[in-house]
Amino acid sequence: MKEAFPPQWRQGVYEAIARRRDIRSFLPDPVPPDILARVLWAAHHAGSVGFMQPWNFIVIEDIGIRRSVRAHVEAQRLRAAEAFDDARRGAYLSFKLEGILDAPLNICVTCDRQRFGPTILGRHTIRETDLYSTCAAIQNLWLAARAEGIGVGWVSILEPQELRRLLEIPEHVVPVAYLCVGFVDDFPERPMLETAGWLPRLALSEVVFSDRWATPPATPLSDALGREGFIDPVAGKGVCED
Amino acid sequence: MKEAFPPQWRQGVYEAIARRRDIRSFLPDPVPPDILARVLWAAHHAGSVGFMQPWNFIVIEDIGIRRSVRAHVEAQRLRAAEAFDDARRGAYLSFKLEGILDAPLNICVTCDRQRFGPTILGRHTIRETDLYSTCAAIQNLWLAARAEGIGVGWVSILEPQELRRLLEIPEHVVPVAYLCVGFVDDFPERPMLETAGWLPRLALSEVVFSDRWATPPATPLSDALGREGFIDPVAGKGVCED
Repeated sequence: MKEAFPPQWRQGVYEAIARRRDIRSFLPDPVPPDILARVLWAAHHAGSVGFMQPWNFIVIEDIGIRRSVRAHVEAQRLRAAEAFDDARRGAYLSFKLEGILDAPLNICVTCDRQRFGPTILGRHTIRETDLYSTCAAIQNLWLAARAEGIGVGWVSILEPQELRRLLEIPEHVVPVAYLCVGFVDDFPERPMLETAGWLPRLALSEVVFSDRWATPPATPLSDALGREGFIDPVAGKGVCED
Repeated sequence: MKEAFPPQWRQGVYEAIARRRDIRSFLPDPVPPDILARVLWAAHHAGSVGFMQPWNFIVIEDIGIRRSVRAHVEAQRLRAAEAFDDARRGAYLSFKLEGILDAPLNICVTCDRQRFGPTILGRHTIRETDLYSTCAAIQNLWLAARAEGIGVGWVSILEPQELRRLLEIPEHVVPVAYLCVGFVDDFPERPMLETAGWLPRLALSEVVFSDRWATPPATPLSDALGREGFIDPVAGKGVCED
């Protein structure tokens, strides 16, 4: 209909979604400030509950801070290894999980739970909507970065309290994501954990229900879901071939 | 660099981010199954911690269920009004906050906190990363929908426990978002709450820090952030004019 994007724009959106990867290996080249500003602009233009814009973006270049974060992550990585059984522990420890020092910069994305005061439109029932909005901003950042040829890796094995200490973040602010950001040699075709056989990609038709939990959709939606191969930029099948 | 998108694709990503809106008014036209499948495909291709893909998408067309959800939301809306002072209460009550019955379909996006068992790679330190991943999927859905000319409105004033009851969602699954989905007459130029003067848009330079909380960035990043008007699809300034 009239508000749909022209084919090339629309394809760009699907290509970004399909080609975005969680990146752990980076080139040392600096990210030009104009590109970084565009990517942060993209993040800042996510929607937020009650227009509260609860996010901040701490751009970390300081090597001393990054070394401290890296040491903390490494300790957490070894601690987490103990939770896996013997068969999986070796695989887990073989994965490269972060590029904190390889990447030219890191970005900590935070959520200020008190921004614009205690009464936020739309947040009366579910307090976590501010955290959810911050995650939407992170996804915008990730997709814009992909369009710019910039890789992003989300490091999730950090204690929020330790990040608060290292980055001097106040208690009422939640560090939601710690991202490594930089140019890459390559965006892998598939997610690393899929390629490694760690877990399988679920079929689209398995994750969609109709009207109620666990009720599979009927035709024609079930047929359309089953044709999910219609979008596969890796195999060269685009959405815009129709 | 070589992995950057061609200009039209890249512009599509920024245009989707800039033109996405939280929609509350819908046309009754049905959403074609192929378009709905593409939008759900986009959601399912978000990244997730440990590749756990914790999301499900309950596509709700049943009018009886939607009437029950609508009645619950209306009660929550009136309850929430009591939290605002007199000056704001009138404005709050004048806003249209949802299109549950106008839209041809609703989608409840959930997070299964037990998917693939208790030990998920990367979720040992921060348990909420599965919820964060689900929000990334929601943002993908929202952007793909925008590219298709489909509006999405996130209704956040629902009790999760009531949604579980109405949609028969098990206790270990969190209903993260309740979305209204359909074609629209118009995507507003600015967010409704910005236009209404409810809260101001923060300047990009206000939400970016350098190395530590509350430390403003130095040049050249600060200059680049100050030029944020460089992307303004509404005013016809695109990212691809360089």
